[in-house]
Amino acid sequence: MRLLFTLQYLGTRYAGWQRQANALAVQQVVEDALSKMAGAPIHVEGAGRTDSGVHARAQRAHADLAIDIDDRGLILGLNDLLPHDIRVTAVEHVADDFHCRFRAKTKTYVYQIWNDSVADVFAYGTHAHVAQRLDETQMHAAAQRLAGKHDFRAFTVLSPEVSSTCRTVHAVEVMREAHVVRIRIRADGFLRYMVRRIAGSLIEIGRGKIDPAALARALEPSFAEARWTAPAKGLVLWEIAY
Amino acid sequence: MRLLFTLQYLGTRYAGWQRQANALAVQQVVEDALSKMAGAPIHVEGAGRTDSGVHARAQRAHADLAIDIDDRGLILGLNDLLPHDIRVTAVEHVADDFHCRFRAKTKTYVYQIWNDSVADVFAYGTHAHVAQRLDETQMHAAAQRLAGKHDFRAFTVLSPEVSSTCRTVHAVEVMREAHVVRIRIRADGFLRYMVRRIAGSLIEIGRGKIDPAALARALEPSFAEARWTAPAKGLVLWEIAY
Repeated sequence: MRLLFTLQYLGTRYAGWQRQANALAVQQVVEDALSKMAGAPIHVEGAGRTDSGVHARAQRAHADLAIDIDDRGLILGLNDLLPHDIRVTAVEHVADDFHCRFRAKTKTYVYQIWNDSVADVFAYGTHAHVAQRLDETQMHAAAQRLAGKHDFRAFTVLSPEVSSTCRTVHAVEVMREAHVVRIRIRADGFLRYMVRRIAGSLIEIGRGKIDPAALARALEPSFAEARWTAPAKGLVLWEIAY
Repeated sequence: MRLLFTLQYLGTRYAGWQRQANALAVQQVVEDALSKMAGAPIHVEGAGRTDSGVHARAQRAHADLAIDIDDRGLILGLNDLLPHDIRVTAVEHVADDFHCRFRAKTKTYVYQIWNDSVADVFAYGTHAHVAQRLDETQMHAAAQRLAGKHDFRAFTVLSPEVSSTCRTVHAVEVMREAHVVRIRIRADGFLRYMVRRIAGSLIEIGRGKIDPAALARALEPSFAEARWTAPAKGLVLWEIAY
Protein backbone atom coordinates (compact mmCIF):
# COMPACT_ATOMS: atom_id res chain seq x y z
CA MET A 1 0.00 0.00 0.00
CA ARG A 2 1.09 3.56 -0.66
CA LEU A 3 1.37 5.94 2.26
CA LEU A 4 1.67 9.72 2.16
CA PHE A 5 3.60 11.15 5.08
CA THR A 6 3.69 14.70 6.42
CA LEU A 7 7.09 15.52 7.87
CA GLN A 8 8.70 18.46 9.58
CA TYR A 9 12.43 19.00 10.00
CA LEU A 10 15.06 21.47 11.08
CA GLY A 11 17.38 21.52 8.07
CA THR A 12 20.40 22.83 10.01
CA ARG A 13 22.24 19.49 10.25
CA TYR A 14 21.26 18.18 6.81
CA ALA A 15 22.48 18.48 3.22
CA GLY A 16 18.89 19.04 2.12
CA TRP A 17 16.10 16.57 1.45
CA GLN A 18 17.66 14.55 -1.35
CA ARG A 19 19.96 11.60 -0.62
CA GLN A 20 23.65 12.43 -1.19
CA ALA A 21 26.68 10.21 -1.57
CA ASN A 22 28.88 12.06 0.92
CA ALA A 23 26.58 13.99 3.19
CA LEU A 24 23.60 13.26 5.41
CA ALA A 25 20.25 14.08 3.82
CA VAL A 26 16.77 13.98 5.36
CA GLN A 27 15.55 11.46 2.77
CA GLN A 28 18.19 8.95 3.84
CA VAL A 29 17.36 9.29 7.53
CA VAL A 30 13.64 8.80 6.83
CA GLU A 31 14.33 5.84 4.54
CA ASP A 32 16.53 4.22 7.18
CA ALA A 33 13.83 4.57 9.83
CA LEU A 34 11.07 3.25 7.55
CA SER A 35 13.27 0.36 6.36
CA LYS A 36 13.99 -0.59 9.96
CA MET A 37 10.28 -0.66 10.79
CA ALA A 38 9.38 -2.59 7.62
CA GLY A 39 12.30 -4.99 7.89
CA ALA A 40 13.13 -4.36 4.22
CA PRO A 41 14.65 -1.52 2.17
CA ILE A 42 12.03 1.19 1.57
CA HIS A 43 12.35 3.99 -0.94
CA VAL A 44 10.82 7.35 0.01
CA GLU A 45 9.89 9.93 -2.61
CA GLY A 46 9.72 13.55 -1.44
CA ALA A 47 7.47 16.30 -2.77
CA GLY A 48 9.90 19.20 -2.32
CA ARG A 49 13.66 19.00 -2.89
CA THR A 50 14.65 21.38 -0.11
CA ASP A 51 18.28 22.54 -0.26
CA SER A 52 20.96 22.18 2.36
CA GLY A 53 20.00 24.01 5.54
CA VAL A 54 16.38 24.64 4.50
CA HIS A 55 13.66 23.65 6.97
CA ALA A 56 10.24 22.08 6.50
CA ARG A 57 7.05 22.62 8.46
CA ALA A 58 5.02 20.22 6.27
CA GLN A 59 7.08 18.36 3.68
CA ARG A 60 5.23 15.48 2.01
CA ALA A 61 6.71 12.14 1.01
CA HIS A 62 5.27 8.85 -0.17
CA ALA A 63 6.46 5.26 0.19
CA ASP A 64 5.13 1.77 -0.56
CA LEU A 65 5.17 -0.56 2.34
CA ALA A 66 3.37 -3.60 3.65
CA ILE A 67 3.45 -3.43 7.41
CA ASP A 68 0.95 -4.70 9.93
CA ILE A 69 0.60 -1.66 12.16
CA ASP A 70 -2.03 1.06 12.56
CA ASP A 71 -1.28 4.68 11.59
CA ARG A 72 -0.81 5.86 15.14
CA GLY A 73 1.61 3.02 15.84
CA LEU A 74 3.49 3.80 12.64
CA ILE A 75 3.87 7.50 13.55
CA LEU A 76 4.98 6.71 17.10
CA GLY A 77 7.37 3.99 15.92
CA LEU A 78 8.96 6.19 13.26
CA ASN A 79 9.38 9.13 15.62
CA ASP A 80 11.02 6.80 18.09
CA LEU A 81 13.62 5.89 15.46
CA LEU A 82 14.06 9.37 13.97
CA PRO A 83 16.36 12.02 15.49
CA HIS A 84 14.61 14.90 17.29
CA ASP A 85 15.08 17.29 14.34
CA ILE A 86 12.86 15.18 12.04
CA ARG A 87 9.25 14.33 12.96
CA VAL A 88 6.49 12.50 11.15
CA THR A 89 3.31 14.41 11.99
CA ALA A 90 0.71 12.57 9.88
CA VAL A 91 0.16 9.63 7.55
CA GLU A 92 -2.55 9.08 4.92
CA HIS A 93 -3.43 6.14 2.69
CA VAL A 94 -3.32 7.06 -1.01
CA ALA A 95 -3.87 5.27 -4.34
CA ASP A 96 -1.00 3.17 -5.70
CA ASP A 97 -0.41 5.60 -8.55
CA PHE A 98 -0.39 8.72 -6.35
CA HIS A 99 2.88 10.67 -6.64
CA CYS A 100 3.52 13.27 -3.97
CA ARG A 101 5.55 15.54 -6.27
CA PHE A 102 3.68 15.25 -9.56
CA ARG A 103 0.27 15.53 -7.91
CA ALA A 104 1.15 18.63 -5.88
CA LYS A 105 -1.09 21.52 -6.97
CA THR A 106 0.67 24.27 -5.06
CA LYS A 107 3.58 24.64 -2.69
CA THR A 108 4.04 27.38 -0.13
CA TYR A 109 7.39 28.57 1.16
CA VAL A 110 7.91 31.10 3.95
CA TYR A 111 11.11 33.12 4.27
CA GLN A 112 11.72 34.35 7.84
CA ILE A 113 13.77 37.42 8.77
CA TRP A 114 14.70 38.65 12.25
CA ASN A 115 14.73 42.39 11.69
CA ASP A 116 16.32 44.20 14.62
CA SER A 117 19.74 45.71 15.29
CA VAL A 118 20.59 42.76 17.55
CA ALA A 119 20.01 39.17 16.39
CA ASP A 120 17.77 36.95 18.53
CA VAL A 121 19.13 33.74 20.07
CA PHE A 122 15.76 31.98 19.80
CA ALA A 123 15.25 32.95 16.13
CA TYR A 124 18.87 32.31 15.16
CA GLY A 125 18.49 28.86 13.60
CA THR A 126 15.39 29.56 11.54
CA HIS A 127 15.55 33.25 10.60
CA ALA A 128 17.97 35.34 8.55
CA HIS A 129 19.16 38.40 10.45
CA VAL A 130 18.80 41.86 8.89
CA ALA A 131 19.91 44.63 11.25
CA GLN A 132 18.71 47.57 9.16
CA ARG A 133 15.00 48.39 9.46
CA LEU A 134 13.07 46.86 6.53
CA ASP A 135 10.16 48.65 4.89
CA GLU A 136 7.75 45.71 4.64
CA THR A 137 5.06 47.80 2.92
CA GLN A 138 7.48 48.62 0.11
CA MET A 139 8.54 44.96 -0.07
CA HIS A 140 4.95 43.75 -0.22
CA ALA A 141 4.10 46.21 -3.00
CA ALA A 142 7.15 45.23 -5.06
CA ALA A 143 6.45 41.52 -4.56
CA GLN A 144 3.00 41.80 -6.16
CA ARG A 145 4.77 42.12 -9.52
CA LEU A 146 5.74 38.42 -9.19
CA ALA A 147 2.12 37.21 -9.17
CA GLY A 148 1.03 35.33 -12.29
CA LYS A 149 2.93 33.23 -14.82
CA HIS A 150 6.49 34.38 -15.49
CA ASP A 151 9.85 33.10 -16.62
CA PHE A 152 11.84 32.96 -13.39
CA ARG A 153 15.19 32.08 -15.02
CA ALA A 154 16.84 35.10 -13.37
CA PHE A 155 16.06 33.54 -10.00
CA THR A 156 17.63 30.12 -10.53
CA VAL A 157 20.72 28.34 -11.83
CA LEU A 158 19.96 26.97 -15.28
CA SER A 159 20.23 23.21 -15.46
CA PRO A 160 19.58 20.73 -18.32
CA GLU A 161 17.26 18.78 -16.01
CA VAL A 162 14.78 21.64 -15.89
CA SER A 163 12.69 21.79 -19.06
CA SER A 164 10.94 25.07 -18.33
CA THR A 165 11.78 27.98 -16.07
CA CYS A 166 8.21 29.30 -16.17
CA ARG A 167 6.23 29.11 -12.95
CA THR A 168 2.90 30.54 -11.79
CA VAL A 169 2.96 32.44 -8.53
CA HIS A 170 -0.53 32.38 -6.99
CA ALA A 171 0.10 34.65 -4.04
CA VAL A 172 2.94 36.49 -2.39
CA GLU A 173 2.75 38.46 0.85
CA VAL A 174 5.24 40.29 3.04
CA MET A 175 4.10 40.65 6.65
CA ARG A 176 5.63 42.01 9.84
CA GLU A 177 4.98 40.78 13.38
CA ALA A 178 7.12 42.88 15.77
CA HIS A 179 10.74 42.10 14.83
CA VAL A 180 9.88 39.26 12.44
CA VAL A 181 9.29 39.91 8.73
CA ARG A 182 7.93 36.96 6.75
CA ILE A 183 7.72 36.53 2.98
CA ARG A 184 5.14 33.91 2.03
CA ILE A 185 4.99 32.64 -1.58
CA ARG A 186 2.53 30.13 -3.00
CA ALA A 187 3.14 28.83 -6.53
CA ASP A 188 2.54 25.79 -8.73
CA GLY A 189 6.21 24.97 -8.27
CA PHE A 190 9.60 26.48 -7.53
CA LEU A 191 12.99 26.49 -9.22
CA ARG A 192 16.18 25.92 -7.32
CA TYR A 193 17.13 29.03 -5.25
CA MET A 194 13.97 30.79 -6.48
CA VAL A 195 12.57 31.75 -3.05
CA ARG A 196 15.97 32.64 -1.64
CA ARG A 197 16.71 34.92 -4.61
CA ILE A 198 13.29 36.53 -4.44
CA ALA A 199 13.81 37.02 -0.69
CA GLY A 200 17.31 38.41 -1.32
CA SER A 201 15.96 40.95 -3.81
CA LEU A 202 13.04 41.91 -1.56
CA ILE A 203 15.40 42.45 1.38
CA GLU A 204 17.49 44.85 -0.76
CA ILE A 205 14.27 46.65 -1.72
CA GLY A 206 13.20 46.77 1.94
CA ARG A 207 16.57 48.28 2.89
CA GLY A 208 16.16 50.89 0.17
CA LYS A 209 19.30 49.66 -1.59
CA ILE A 210 17.68 48.81 -4.90
CA ASP A 211 14.74 50.15 -6.80
CA PRO A 212 11.47 48.15 -6.48
CA ALA A 213 11.39 48.03 -10.29
CA ALA A 214 14.54 45.84 -10.28
CA LEU A 215 12.37 42.86 -9.34
CA ALA A 216 10.10 43.44 -12.33
CA ARG A 217 13.09 43.90 -14.67
CA ALA A 218 14.44 40.49 -13.66
CA LEU A 219 11.24 38.95 -15.08
CA GLU A 220 11.75 40.49 -18.54
CA PRO A 221 13.22 38.51 -21.46
CA SER A 222 16.40 40.58 -21.32
CA PHE A 223 16.77 39.64 -17.67
CA ALA A 224 19.71 40.42 -15.45
CA GLU A 225 20.45 37.65 -12.99
CA ALA A 226 19.01 38.32 -9.52
CA ARG A 227 22.18 38.85 -7.52
CA TRP A 228 20.98 38.58 -3.97
CA THR A 229 20.48 35.14 -2.45
CA ALA A 230 19.16 35.14 1.12
CA PRO A 231 20.66 32.49 3.47
CA ALA A 232 19.14 28.98 3.55
CA LYS A 233 18.42 29.01 7.28
CA GLY A 234 15.54 31.50 6.91
CA LEU A 235 13.64 29.32 4.45
CA VAL A 236 10.81 26.97 5.45
CA LEU A 237 8.81 24.66 3.16
CA TRP A 238 5.48 25.57 4.72
CA GLU A 239 2.74 23.63 2.97
CA ILE A 240 1.97 21.46 -0.06
CA ALA A 241 -1.58 21.28 -1.38
CA TYR A 242 -3.07 18.48 -3.52
CA MET B 1 31.38 53.41 35.84
CA ARG B 2 28.80 50.70 36.50
CA LEU B 3 26.85 49.32 33.57
CA LEU B 4 23.70 47.21 33.69
CA PHE B 5 23.39 44.82 30.76
CA THR B 6 20.33 43.02 29.43
CA LEU B 7 21.28 39.64 27.97
CA GLN B 8 19.49 36.81 26.26
CA TYR B 9 20.85 33.30 25.83
CA LEU B 10 19.98 29.81 24.75
CA GLY B 11 21.06 27.74 27.72
CA THR B 12 21.40 24.48 25.78
CA ARG B 13 25.21 24.51 25.55
CA TYR B 14 25.89 26.00 28.97
CA ALA B 15 26.24 24.78 32.53
CA GLY B 16 23.98 27.62 33.65
CA TRP B 17 24.79 31.26 34.36
CA GLN B 18 27.32 30.87 37.15
CA ARG B 19 31.01 30.32 36.40
CA GLN B 20 32.09 26.69 36.95
CA ALA B 21 35.51 25.11 37.33
CA ASN B 22 34.98 22.32 34.80
CA ALA B 23 32.14 23.39 32.55
CA LEU B 24 31.32 26.35 30.35
CA ALA B 25 28.98 28.87 31.97
CA VAL B 26 27.36 31.96 30.43
CA GLN B 27 28.97 34.24 33.03
CA GLN B 28 32.45 33.17 31.94
CA VAL B 29 31.73 33.74 28.24
CA VAL B 30 30.36 37.23 28.97
CA GLU B 31 33.28 38.06 31.28
CA ASP B 32 35.75 36.94 28.60
CA ALA B 33 34.12 39.13 25.95
CA LEU B 34 33.93 42.18 28.24
CA SER B 35 37.52 41.68 29.42
CA LYS B 36 38.71 41.51 25.83
CA MET B 37 36.94 44.79 25.01
CA ALA B 38 38.18 46.50 28.17
CA GLY B 39 41.72 45.13 27.89
CA ALA B 40 41.58 44.10 31.55
CA PRO B 41 39.84 41.37 33.60
CA ILE B 42 36.22 42.33 34.23
CA HIS B 43 33.92 40.67 36.74
CA VAL B 44 30.25 40.37 35.78
CA GLU B 45 27.57 39.92 38.42
CA GLY B 46 24.31 38.29 37.26
CA ALA B 47 20.81 38.91 38.60
CA GLY B 48 19.46 35.38 38.15
CA ARG B 49 21.48 32.19 38.68
CA THR B 50 19.89 30.17 35.92
CA ASP B 51 20.65 26.44 36.07
CA SER B 52 22.26 24.29 33.42
CA GLY B 53 20.19 24.25 30.24
CA VAL B 54 17.87 27.08 31.31
CA HIS B 55 17.41 29.96 28.85
CA ALA B 56 17.10 33.71 29.34
CA ARG B 57 15.08 36.23 27.39
CA ALA B 58 16.17 39.15 29.57
CA GLN B 59 18.79 38.27 32.16
CA ARG B 60 20.41 41.28 33.84
CA ALA B 61 24.05 41.63 34.81
CA HIS B 62 26.24 44.48 36.00
CA ALA B 63 29.94 45.22 35.62
CA ASP B 64 32.33 48.07 36.38
CA LEU B 65 34.38 49.20 33.46
CA ALA B 66 36.17 52.23 32.16
CA ILE B 67 36.02 52.10 28.41
CA ASP B 68 35.90 54.90 25.89
CA ILE B 69 33.07 53.74 23.67
CA ASP B 70 29.42 54.71 23.28
CA ASP B 71 26.62 52.29 24.26
CA ARG B 72 25.81 51.28 20.70
CA GLY B 73 29.46 50.56 19.97
CA LEU B 74 29.72 48.54 23.18
CA ILE B 75 26.67 46.41 22.29
CA LEU B 76 27.89 45.82 18.72
CA GLY B 77 31.44 45.07 19.87
CA LEU B 78 30.31 42.61 22.55
CA ASN B 79 27.93 40.79 20.19
CA ASP B 80 30.77 40.50 17.72
CA LEU B 81 32.85 38.69 20.34
CA LEU B 82 30.03 36.59 21.82
CA PRO B 83 28.84 33.30 20.30
CA HIS B 84 25.45 33.43 18.52
CA ASP B 85 23.62 31.84 21.46
CA ILE B 86 24.38 34.80 23.78
CA ARG B 87 23.35 38.37 22.87
CA VAL B 88 23.60 41.67 24.69
CA THR B 89 20.37 43.50 23.86
CA ALA B 90 20.72 46.66 25.97
CA VAL B 91 23.02 48.58 28.30
CA GLU B 92 22.18 51.21 30.94
CA HIS B 93 24.33 53.39 33.16
CA VAL B 94 23.61 52.86 36.86
CA ALA B 95 24.89 54.19 40.17
CA ASP B 96 28.14 52.70 41.53
CA ASP B 97 26.30 51.00 44.40
CA PHE B 98 23.60 49.46 42.21
CA HIS B 99 23.50 45.67 42.48
CA CYS B 100 21.52 43.83 39.81
CA ARG B 101 20.55 40.94 42.10
CA PHE B 102 19.90 42.71 45.41
CA ARG B 103 18.00 45.54 43.77
CA ALA B 104 15.70 43.29 41.72
CA LYS B 105 12.09 43.84 42.85
CA THR B 106 10.55 40.94 40.95
CA LYS B 107 11.65 38.22 38.56
CA THR B 108 9.47 36.49 36.00
CA TYR B 109 10.06 33.00 34.70
CA VAL B 110 8.10 31.31 31.91
CA TYR B 111 7.90 27.53 31.59
CA GLN B 112 7.11 26.42 28.02
CA ILE B 113 5.44 23.13 27.08
CA TRP B 114 4.81 21.73 23.60
CA ASN B 115 1.55 19.86 24.16
CA ASP B 116 0.76 17.60 21.23
CA SER B 117 1.11 13.88 20.56
CA VAL B 118 4.10 14.57 18.29
CA ALA B 119 6.95 16.83 19.44
CA ASP B 120 7.79 19.88 17.30
CA VAL B 121 11.25 20.28 15.75
CA PHE B 122 11.13 24.07 16.03
CA ALA B 123 10.05 24.04 19.68
CA TYR B 124 12.37 21.19 20.66
CA GLY B 125 15.19 23.22 22.21
CA THR B 126 13.07 25.57 24.29
CA HIS B 127 9.94 23.62 25.25
CA ALA B 128 9.33 20.48 27.28
CA HIS B 129 7.21 17.95 25.39
CA VAL B 130 4.03 16.57 26.96
CA ALA B 131 2.14 14.25 24.59
CA GLN B 132 -0.99 13.87 26.69
CA ARG B 133 -3.52 16.69 26.42
CA LEU B 134 -3.14 19.11 29.34
CA ASP B 135 -6.11 20.76 31.01
CA GLU B 136 -4.73 24.30 31.24
CA THR B 137 -7.86 25.62 32.99
CA GLN B 138 -7.39 23.10 35.80
CA MET B 139 -3.66 23.96 35.95
CA HIS B 140 -4.37 27.68 36.14
CA ALA B 141 -6.93 27.22 38.92
CA ALA B 142 -4.57 25.03 40.96
CA ALA B 143 -1.68 27.45 40.43
CA GLN B 144 -3.59 30.32 42.07
CA ARG B 145 -3.02 28.61 45.42
CA LEU B 146 0.70 29.58 45.07
CA ALA B 147 0.00 33.33 45.07
CA GLY B 148 1.11 35.19 48.19
CA LYS B 149 3.90 34.56 50.70
CA HIS B 150 4.63 30.89 51.36
CA ASP B 151 7.38 28.58 52.50
CA PHE B 152 8.45 26.91 49.25
CA ARG B 153 10.87 24.41 50.87
CA ALA B 154 9.03 21.51 49.22
CA PHE B 155 10.01 22.96 45.83
CA THR B 156 13.75 23.25 46.36
CA VAL B 157 16.81 21.43 47.64
CA LEU B 158 17.64 22.73 51.09
CA SER B 159 21.05 24.35 51.28
CA PRO B 160 22.90 26.09 54.13
CA GLU B 161 23.48 29.09 51.83
CA VAL B 162 19.77 29.87 51.73
CA SER B 163 18.65 31.63 54.91
CA SER B 164 14.92 31.55 54.18
CA THR B 165 12.77 29.40 51.92
CA CYS B 166 9.88 31.87 52.03
CA ARG B 167 9.08 33.70 48.81
CA THR B 168 6.21 35.91 47.66
CA VAL B 169 4.55 34.94 44.41
CA HIS B 170 2.91 38.02 42.89
CA ALA B 171 1.21 36.36 39.94
CA VAL B 172 0.98 32.98 38.29
CA GLU B 173 -0.85 32.20 35.07
CA VAL B 174 -1.23 29.14 32.85
CA MET B 175 -2.11 29.97 29.25
CA ARG B 176 -2.55 27.97 26.06
CA GLU B 177 -1.81 29.15 22.50
CA ALA B 178 -2.61 26.27 20.11
CA HIS B 179 -0.14 23.49 21.05
CA VAL B 180 1.91 25.62 23.43
CA VAL B 181 1.07 25.81 27.14
CA ARG B 182 2.98 28.44 29.14
CA ILE B 183 3.28 28.82 32.90
CA ARG B 184 4.29 32.34 33.88
CA ILE B 185 5.35 33.10 37.45
CA ARG B 186 6.34 36.46 38.88
CA ALA B 187 7.79 36.55 42.39
CA ASP B 188 10.14 38.56 44.60
CA GLY B 189 12.66 35.76 44.12
CA PHE B 190 12.99 32.06 43.39
CA LEU B 191 14.64 29.11 45.06
CA ARG B 192 16.70 26.59 43.14
CA TYR B 193 14.44 24.25 41.07
CA MET B 194 11.37 26.14 42.32
CA VAL B 195 9.84 26.90 38.90
CA ARG B 196 10.71 23.49 37.46
CA ARG B 197 9.11 21.74 40.44
CA ILE B 198 6.03 23.93 40.30
CA ALA B 199 5.83 23.26 36.54
CA GLY B 200 6.32 19.53 37.14
CA SER B 201 3.46 19.46 39.66
CA LEU B 202 1.19 21.55 37.42
CA ILE B 203 1.87 19.22 34.47
CA GLU B 204 0.80 16.24 36.61
CA ILE B 205 -2.34 18.14 37.58
CA GLY B 206 -2.99 19.02 33.93
CA ARG B 207 -2.65 15.36 32.97
CA GLY B 208 -5.14 14.43 35.69
CA LYS B 209 -2.52 12.28 37.45
CA ILE B 210 -2.55 14.11 40.75
CA ASP B 211 -5.14 16.02 42.68
CA PRO B 212 -4.98 19.84 42.37
CA ALA B 213 -4.90 19.97 46.17
CA ALA B 214 -1.48 18.30 46.13
CA LEU B 215 0.08 21.64 45.22
CA ALA B 216 -1.51 23.33 48.22
CA ARG B 217 -0.47 20.48 50.54
CA ALA B 218 3.16 20.99 49.51
CA LEU B 219 2.95 24.51 50.96
CA GLU B 220 1.85 23.30 54.42
CA PRO B 221 4.29 22.99 57.34
CA SER B 222 4.04 19.19 57.17
CA PHE B 223 5.03 19.35 53.53
CA ALA B 224 5.79 16.41 51.31
CA GLU B 225 8.56 17.12 48.82
CA ALA B 226 7.27 18.04 45.36
CA ARG B 227 8.35 15.01 43.35
CA TRP B 228 7.99 16.24 39.76
CA THR B 229 10.74 18.35 38.26
CA ALA B 230 10.08 19.52 34.70
CA PRO B 231 13.11 19.52 32.35
CA ALA B 232 15.43 22.56 32.26
CA LYS B 233 15.05 23.19 28.53
CA GLY B 234 11.45 24.46 28.93
CA LEU B 235 12.45 27.20 31.40
CA VAL B 236 13.12 30.81 30.39
CA LEU B 237 14.17 33.67 32.69
CA TRP B 238 11.75 36.14 31.14
CA GLU B 239 12.10 39.46 32.92
CA ILE B 240 13.62 41.21 35.92
CA ALA B 241 12.04 44.38 37.25
CA TYR B 242 13.74 47.04 39.38
